[in-house]
Amino acid sequence: MLNEPTFKPGLEGVVAAQTRLSRVDGLAGELVIAGFPLEAIAPYATFEEMVYLLWHDRLPNAPELADFRAALAAERDLPGATLDVLGAAASDHQDVMDALRMAASTLSLGGSGDDPERDARKLVASFPTIVAAYWRLLNGESPIAPRTDLGHAANFLYMLTGNEPDAEGVRGLETYLNTVVDHGLNASTFTARVIISTGSDMISAIVGALGALKGPLHGGAPGPALDMVFEIGDAANAEPYLRRKLDTGELLMGFGHRVYKVRDPRADVLAAASERLYRNGGDMDLYTLVGAVEQKAVALLAEYKPGRHLQTNVEFYTALLLHGLGFPTALFSPTFAISRVAGWTAHAFEQQEVNRIIRPQSVYTGVKDRRWVAVQQR
Amino acid sequence: MLNEPTFKPGLEGVVAAQTRLSRVDGLAGELVIAGFPLEAIAPYATFEEMVYLLWHDRLPNAPELADFRAALAAERDLPGATLDVLGAAASDHQDVMDALRMAASTLSLGGSGDDPERDARKLVASFPTIVAAYWRLLNGESPIAPRTDLGHAANFLYMLTGNEPDAEGVRGLETYLNTVVDHGLNASTFTARVIISTGSDMISAIVGALGALKGPLHGGAPGPALDMVFEIGDAANAEPYLRRKLDTGELLMGFGHRVYKVRDPRADVLAAASERLYRNGGDMDLYTLVGAVEQKAVALLAEYKPGRHLQTNVEFYTALLLHGLGFPTALFSPTFAISRVAGWTAHAFEQQEVNRIIRPQSVYTGVKDRRWVAVQQR
Repeated sequence: MLNEPTFKPGLEGVVAAQTRLSRVDGLAGELVIAGFPLEAIAPYATFEEMVYLLWHDRLPNAPELADFRAALAAERDLPGATLDVLGAAASDHQDVMDALRMAASTLSLGGSGDDPERDARKLVASFPTIVAAYWRLLNGESPIAPRTDLGHAANFLYMLTGNEPDAEGVRGLETYLNTVVDHGLNASTFTARVIISTGSDMISAIVGALGALKGPLHGGAPGPALDMVFEIGDAANAEPYLRRKLDTGELLMGFGHRVYKVRDPRADVLAAASERLYRNGGDMDLYTLVGAVEQKAVALLAEYKPGRHLQTNVEFYTALLLHGLGFPTALFSPTFAISRVAGWTAHAFEQQEVNRIIRPQSVYTGVKDRRWVAVQQR
Repeated sequence: MLNEPTFKPGLEGVVAAQTRLSRVDGLAGELVIAGFPLEAIAPYATFEEMVYLLWHDRLPNAPELADFRAALAAERDLPGATLDVLGAAASDHQDVMDALRMAASTLSLGGSGDDPERDARKLVASFPTIVAAYWRLLNGESPIAPRTDLGHAANFLYMLTGNEPDAEGVRGLETYLNTVVDHGLNASTFTARVIISTGSDMISAIVGALGALKGPLHGGAPGPALDMVFEIGDAANAEPYLRRKLDTGELLMGFGHRVYKVRDPRADVLAAASERLYRNGGDMDLYTLVGAVEQKAVALLAEYKPGRHLQTNVEFYTALLLHGLGFPTALFSPTFAISRVAGWTAHAFEQQEVNRIIRPQSVYTGVKDRRWVAVQQR
């Protein structure tokens, strides 16, 4: 048949959306977020400013920001049924990402029909409450109620521990949240766009995106990169340790990216934020060790895999920064979701303007002429 | 830039999957389900046979079918937390599709980690329990526990009313469930495949698909087609009623399909099932009226919209059949989901074999050179 469409496994190279939300240039190592080079906004903006920017395509002025902070803070509480689900999930020792998906799906409760703006605020505002409450329940502790007088990032840190965080910790977390808030059309963002393209609602779209984010091929699992650094323990061990891995064909976690062929620009921003955080904490040992391991790993990767351009990715310094903030590895992916939900909702708003269902096609590879035989004759 | 990929809005004409599950030929009006022409299997198979066929690419023999029925029946009960969520949703008068999404997301509870086969059985087996329990809660009645001695379709009818259904009702429902179980790469099926392509789990994939199915652009909202027939009331009113609609530019619900340019083969199968059901019930008036309205509508559409090939779609006779089974309009979409979840899980299994993330790209349409200004200066 003429013009038979060809199968595009993975849809690589297919453009499925136009967006003003972010631009990834993997060859130049540049990431633009809503018009800003990443490094020109991530270390400076509060997370509320970033969310406002993504949703409104401009930064808020002072009164707008105050209103927006208050509107988000007002949505931090969870419906009773959501807390009950988290309790049941904790009794069952469910993975944090699964518990977050279960809880997020209940956030329609208390809403009044289909109101995408309300739903987006509820989702962004309550993800930290869900994650902090679940983490405490999983550890046999009572959830701590959110405080409306704290900013989004500060309140998350407060709900995890009950301690009001210091300004440097809040700044470190906000820089992380801003850095990973959006990144083109990754699989979870695409999922949100497909779901909302049917005319479905914001909660359904974001619950679907959460499901995609959970997958290990999605990326955003920074735990193993840090585990490797801890195993190395001392800069002098880096080269023999890494050579052993490379000699046996193991992958080095924290290096290489499907898109970036130079150093991931997010790694730069997170490395700088980590340096500031660890310097403020008064112990630079881990930061220094991570830098030494990175340098050695990049050099050895160039030697073992010439031409592959395997460079430091976002996971490597994510792990260092979140560890410095006191986060256990199990909270790395959920904290990624706490950031990325802002990008997902912004993409969903953008897709709603397109008002066209995303529906590719399949080709049939099976047989066509089976005949029914009753079960007794099979 | 050379080879700049072009934007494909809606991904129309892009092939995103190979499948042996179903083949839609919109020009010939043919639908193949796992090797069988639709009309050669839908009126004969039990739903359990259909699910087995999709999952295993062959029909079960008698002992295999008995085992499979028992394995599915054993998964019909809901976790306590799932029933609690349904109670909370009912108190809040949530839409049935939203309640189904909330409940489905909790089905990881009681599972033991990532076991796609168990999860698929749990999802398929418990969707009827969720929908029936929720419908009763919404109407102030207590849920009725599932019975393991009834088949999948019979048990669903039983849980809705507490009455054991007659064989003709069960056959009618099974024919419906078989008819809509799979249909190429629609938006919900694609959603399931995108989510599981990241390496995520079966529950996450199906919860995302449910979100996409809910959207009105997805199709599968047969209520309005039947409402129109009731408004017409008498065959003699059909022509003036339909002309009034067409003169004012209104769409006729139940006609036209993006893919089918001839009569949807599913309409044939469902019309035959409806005739059998209504004949058995002893009152053919509605069946006859629907046939008269269909005939007139198709003729008038050819007159008003020549060349558009607007033919009867699946929704028209879905409404008649489900109405004949005693289903309220609010249960039409959830009953569609009770069928389609078998197709979604089968596609998810198929996608797991591909083991490649589905990740198209976006093009950036925003500005690139914004500069940070502190909030006080905005």
